[in-house]
Amino acid sequence: MTQPLIKTQTLSGFRDFLPAEMMAREALVATARDVYRSYGFSPIDTPALEYSEVLTGKSGEESEKQLYRFTTKGGRDVALRFDLTVPFARFAAQHIGQIGTPFRRYHIATVWRGERPQRGRYREFMQCDFDTIGTDSHLADIETLLVIHDLFGRLGFERFTIRVNHRQLLNGLLETLGLADKSTAVLRALDKLPKIGREGVQRELIEGVGAIDATADRLLEFAAISGTPGEVLAQVESLLDGNGRGLDGIALLRQLFDCVATAGVPADRVALDVSIARGLDYYTGTIYETFLDDLPGIGSVCSGGRYDNLAGLFTKQPLPGVGASLGLDRLLAAMEELGRLGASATPADVLVVLFDESRAGDYFRMARELRADGVATEVYPQARALKKQLQYADRKGFRFALIAGSDEFAQGVWQLKDLANGEQRQVGSEELSSSIRDRLSEGRS
Amino acid sequence: MTQPLIKTQTLSGFRDFLPAEMMAREALVATARDVYRSYGFSPIDTPALEYSEVLTGKSGEESEKQLYRFTTKGGRDVALRFDLTVPFARFAAQHIGQIGTPFRRYHIATVWRGERPQRGRYREFMQCDFDTIGTDSHLADIETLLVIHDLFGRLGFERFTIRVNHRQLLNGLLETLGLADKSTAVLRALDKLPKIGREGVQRELIEGVGAIDATADRLLEFAAISGTPGEVLAQVESLLDGNGRGLDGIALLRQLFDCVATAGVPADRVALDVSIARGLDYYTGTIYETFLDDLPGIGSVCSGGRYDNLAGLFTKQPLPGVGASLGLDRLLAAMEELGRLGASATPADVLVVLFDESRAGDYFRMARELRADGVATEVYPQARALKKQLQYADRKGFRFALIAGSDEFAQGVWQLKDLANGEQRQVGSEELSSSIRDRLSEGRS
Repeated sequence: MTQPLIKTQTLSGFRDFLPAEMMAREALVATARDVYRSYGFSPIDTPALEYSEVLTGKSGEESEKQLYRFTTKGGRDVALRFDLTVPFARFAAQHIGQIGTPFRRYHIATVWRGERPQRGRYREFMQCDFDTIGTDSHLADIETLLVIHDLFGRLGFERFTIRVNHRQLLNGLLETLGLADKSTAVLRALDKLPKIGREGVQRELIEGVGAIDATADRLLEFAAISGTPGEVLAQVESLLDGNGRGLDGIALLRQLFDCVATAGVPADRVALDVSIARGLDYYTGTIYETFLDDLPGIGSVCSGGRYDNLAGLFTKQPLPGVGASLGLDRLLAAMEELGRLGASATPADVLVVLFDESRAGDYFRMARELRADGVATEVYPQARALKKQLQYADRKGFRFALIAGSDEFAQGVWQLKDLANGEQRQVGSEELSSSIRDRLSEGRS
Repeated sequence: MTQPLIKTQTLSGFRDFLPAEMMAREALVATARDVYRSYGFSPIDTPALEYSEVLTGKSGEESEKQLYRFTTKGGRDVALRFDLTVPFARFAAQHIGQIGTPFRRYHIATVWRGERPQRGRYREFMQCDFDTIGTDSHLADIETLLVIHDLFGRLGFERFTIRVNHRQLLNGLLETLGLADKSTAVLRALDKLPKIGREGVQRELIEGVGAIDATADRLLEFAAISGTPGEVLAQVESLLDGNGRGLDGIALLRQLFDCVATAGVPADRVALDVSIARGLDYYTGTIYETFLDDLPGIGSVCSGGRYDNLAGLFTKQPLPGVGASLGLDRLLAAMEELGRLGASATPADVLVVLFDESRAGDYFRMARELRADGVATEVYPQARALKKQLQYADRKGFRFALIAGSDEFAQGVWQLKDLANGEQRQVGSEELSSSIRDRLSEGRS
């Protein structure tokens, strides 16, 4: 009759989320959702499982290796989505006639990748993407930056920097240098600057890319440009020798910095960084990365940019777009490191101590009244010793305990105990919710 | 160079959610989350993929057939979760030492079942469960009912009925009739009453279950009991011949109806229905089903009950509990049928018409001010013809359009167009957000 117990284990790279951690995730997701919605982005969702053909269409070998792919009992070759971009491309190609353009969507959902698990890398994680597609207007690029800015503001960050670049700066320079077809190799070489230094990169540009000495110098000069956006643009301009593509990029970036300043974004939140070069095969215009000034080492926590064509594998209709993705897990790790996460394991503020089971209906009624006034309230489900119930409240992180026995019921009052400082006072039933709300808002201000 | 396009298709039984539909889902989930949290239930999450052994432990052949199960590249036998109960059992066994009891959690997440797709049945769908475990207190059962009641209230339903039963009523009766070991067969027979009628069930009780005529009559008499909770309990009591188990059930139900009345739940929202008998192998005490009075035919939209031991397959620690699950897809289908879903495809209220690209920064600034005041606002990304932009606003379901050209900028005013009735009026920049908020709250009241 007694079977051996099944071992309680999760797969490597997969996680359980306990309440305190899950509440932090939910709060972050809720804020992202709020900000995206406030800009008119609407939610969509797509299946976790798709035909493998849909997901592998554009991906290289690396993605293929990481795919959770299998054959269903019905004989279909399927896989779990490894990002939200490919499903969005399929979705857009399939529904764009119905939804029309421009189309702004956000998509907050789980993706799976069979990567080797390591610190901060998981096989199951959540992505929070937003994009505007069906327009090549640069204003959509600028608004993407505003969304990122307002998102971090709403998350309570004061010190963060959105680094901006535009692909056409380097592309223009490469044209003037006769290296227009070598952009990927040049970017790969320049990317190694922090690792192998100026001389190492110079060698790679000459030996690997085939640049002459003077050209390699120009490229290294370009990569070293820094300063205010105005300074950087002036220096880039002088390197461009009047190249039209490069000058277009400069004009777009000037418009961007003007516009976001007019829109009210503080100048120190946005920087021009000609060295950022993400998604070589994908991004074609503006590029964004976001760094926390107090933790730059964790890397970009929100990245994106403009692409020429989202869904070319699925439809002949060109769908240019621009968007970005919030790095939820990385940001949560950062917030934990910065001490910005709460420790409470309950979403409720008040625990009603259950003193007398025969009065359960009265406890329940008061709890419902508090909830109707916006005060989340839990009722302890058994009449255990007061001390036990208060220990429970402490451990979970409730802010208040409410206590009433027959004396209190007779007088129509409650004992309101502040669990932060142990203070207890008697409050009439009528004033209870306003008294609690006042003290909660004090605590939060 | 030109590859053939990849076919845009989703797997049978899997769905894309477009904005209008997804907003309805998000609103429903947000309300469920709010209500669960207001009662002190905290969120958890578990992996979508688990070791197959964990998921198949208790399930019968039917679940096994429905499982999306495969072997990973690393050789692990894994499957997608088919419900949230089994993962919660594993989770509870693994973490209960850390989280302590009683423990209240909600879990809103996607599950997968390879069932034959049919109307209203999908292979990928969302479950919204809440449970209190680690206590056998009947008060937790009563609070479960309060949660269900307040959830439907918050969803805006006036006309719904929570049907309650307690397993011990029938178990007690079966004891008095000498059929204690036949409860499953008896319930299966009684369940067929609507289909095969009284005589058919009588035959099945006699021929299938082995009851004598008088016993079958008592069972049919039991199944036919109806009336107010007080009337039903009195009739059941008279059938029980003083059976202790049955009388205990009656006492618990009496306490439940008293308590929820005291807590402020209208009497017509809660009914006693001795015929409901869900989850024969699982529920052991209170049972709940929830019906919309205007659409009873769609079945229960929120069901649950008490179980003796959640996690017996994973731990020797007994974990009794009680909870329920909101039927999200069924409820959304019902709300659509009842005309309770909005048609808007945008979460924003206001579209800022882009009249003059050189003033983009000013449009963006005003939009940011409105957002800061809680008015979700989209800026059209290109300076297309006014008519085109207003068509876009109409199609998406924006409530207002904001228009400003050089005259308006010179005067510091905006044209505020109400898209519901076409009315347009001029409003000063300073009064814009309060004017919009006033008109939005009028529209909602």
